[in-house]
Amino acid sequence: MRIAQVAPLWECVPPPAYGGTELVVSRLTDGLVKCGHEVTLFATADSQTLANLIPGAPSSLRVAGVTPSEYQVYDLMQMNRLIEQSDQYDVIHFHVDAIALPFANAMKVPCVHTVHGILNPIVEKLFAQNKHQNFVSISNSQRRTDLGLNYVGTVYNGIDPETYVFHPQPSDPPYLTFFGRMSPEKGPHLAIEIAKRTGWHLRMAGKVDRADKEFFATQVEPLIDGEQIVYLGEANHAQKSEIMGNAVATLCPLTWREPFGLVMTESMICGTPVIAIAQGSAPELILHGKTGFLCKDVDECVAAVGRIGEIDRRTCRDHVVQNFSAAAMVQGYEAVYQQLIARKVQQNGHLRQSRAIVGAV
Amino acid sequence: MRIAQVAPLWECVPPPAYGGTELVVSRLTDGLVKCGHEVTLFATADSQTLANLIPGAPSSLRVAGVTPSEYQVYDLMQMNRLIEQSDQYDVIHFHVDAIALPFANAMKVPCVHTVHGILNPIVEKLFAQNKHQNFVSISNSQRRTDLGLNYVGTVYNGIDPETYVFHPQPSDPPYLTFFGRMSPEKGPHLAIEIAKRTGWHLRMAGKVDRADKEFFATQVEPLIDGEQIVYLGEANHAQKSEIMGNAVATLCPLTWREPFGLVMTESMICGTPVIAIAQGSAPELILHGKTGFLCKDVDECVAAVGRIGEIDRRTCRDHVVQNFSAAAMVQGYEAVYQQLIARKVQQNGHLRQSRAIVGAV
Repeated sequence: MRIAQVAPLWECVPPPAYGGTELVVSRLTDGLVKCGHEVTLFATADSQTLANLIPGAPSSLRVAGVTPSEYQVYDLMQMNRLIEQSDQYDVIHFHVDAIALPFANAMKVPCVHTVHGILNPIVEKLFAQNKHQNFVSISNSQRRTDLGLNYVGTVYNGIDPETYVFHPQPSDPPYLTFFGRMSPEKGPHLAIEIAKRTGWHLRMAGKVDRADKEFFATQVEPLIDGEQIVYLGEANHAQKSEIMGNAVATLCPLTWREPFGLVMTESMICGTPVIAIAQGSAPELILHGKTGFLCKDVDECVAAVGRIGEIDRRTCRDHVVQNFSAAAMVQGYEAVYQQLIARKVQQNGHLRQSRAIVGAV
Repeated sequence: MRIAQVAPLWECVPPPAYGGTELVVSRLTDGLVKCGHEVTLFATADSQTLANLIPGAPSSLRVAGVTPSEYQVYDLMQMNRLIEQSDQYDVIHFHVDAIALPFANAMKVPCVHTVHGILNPIVEKLFAQNKHQNFVSISNSQRRTDLGLNYVGTVYNGIDPETYVFHPQPSDPPYLTFFGRMSPEKGPHLAIEIAKRTGWHLRMAGKVDRADKEFFATQVEPLIDGEQIVYLGEANHAQKSEIMGNAVATLCPLTWREPFGLVMTESMICGTPVIAIAQGSAPELILHGKTGFLCKDVDECVAAVGRIGEIDRRTCRDHVVQNFSAAAMVQGYEAVYQQLIARKVQQNGHLRQSRAIVGAV
């Protein structure tokens, strides 16, 4: 297949640190190339890819510090290039949300959108206006059935098993861990509560966004004692794999419907079970009692910590390799593309047939 | 002709106060309807028009106080609606700059863009990428020949003569006037200098944008004495027509290449000659020695004040009625649309012909 992948220009592909969407695009794009597809990646010029790269900006627009208005113009330039050459692809896969919707209406080639984030109320209107287009959800729980979007599949975000070391045993002395943004939605304050109530050590890592500074300063920071509760700042990939892999369990006491819990799959692939509040994608990612525990509240999380010895760490890794690897994701999207192309061929056939009938009359 | 007019959503059409683009769109749209064309206006829902209105936002997005990101989504929704029904028009006329360019590439219908403002460096890149599209300049001096844009005509912004009262004589005691934003480009500080050096009274009106607050506070405000130099704040249409019409001359000591000097045509239609620094569109709008004076600097403006008695005020009005009225603008755009449609028909003819030849072989 000749496939166009359209990435945001905020980060390069793959991103140097944060940038979940760009990371997924990177793994998907390179995975498709390895499967023999002819892939073109629309992304920043400083992206690293096995595909044919069409640059939409000289470098990451976050690093370049552009304004929202300037960002929009780069988006438009990227769409412009895509329109000019859209007939060169069999399918176009958008990862850029709102901007792509009106353009996809103008394309003759089948298009599909993966929405990686959350939609704000105005963007929801634009999506509702285009609900007939093709959408892929990154979990079933992410589906916006209220908007009536036409979902053609769910494809879970995949990670590369080879880049995470399997840890058959946690380190001694044992500890719990928490990874993620220091925001109320991710529940770092609840992770601390669980640690304090169970008496376990907790190692936490994750960035503090500007919007979360006050929450962190008032709800999290005062509880960090550097002994039982340790905050390690932001962690790179190697640190994350090391700290997660050596933990007894990863805590995900979510207070929001997270579209896809990447940290959960990262933890399990290291062999570390996940204790999560059963919000958003968690029930789709964790096998309750097999690869972790799905809890309804903090009390249940506290109880689950006591049962963590029941979990086989090898099962955790196998579960992710089988269901949430980059290879599984590539296969999932291949199936979506084939479905869309087949439907298009069928539609064109009907069109030709009805034209022939009109001609015969 | 079936014509789509696509207006910005920042102001309603026509705008209650400021909004040069929306005012031009209003006059053009209603003028085309009066000429018997079937016109559809894409604008805010609170717009007033003789055309078929397709609302792109509930009301002026400036009044609604949206963020730049939200503004973009409304823009996209408007483009989305236009794409859905683009085959219903013979020609599409865009007044929305950057956002329209990639979409126009995807349209089968002839499209034309009027750029009403100034392009920032990033937007210039997008224009250069689309230089093959059809552009109309609002003055010859506005043409961006450096970008290689394909101009299909110049159509001056038109005003409605009936809404401006002709004043055969200035009032007594006599005064000069200045209308426009209180920004360095418009030269209110130079207007004050001209008044002070000639000893004439000066009445000034115009808004102070946030970006110009410091300039106004340091360069203009200290010179306002409420006697010789009077600042009237913002003026509505009736006040403008009254104050301008009663003036001896309007001063436009520009320090920038203004794409179209609306104030100049408004002044002349009231019968009031214009003394301008010959920047931007000024030499195209003012007949030197007949409807005002084109000066190279403040010294020449000072000298011109002394020669203002040479100007016949009736000639000023006639010049605008003939060349810069809404009727002249409507005719100008009609000619542009006809040219584009004729070219499209010719192209399609060639296409059909070459297909027929292929079929015959």
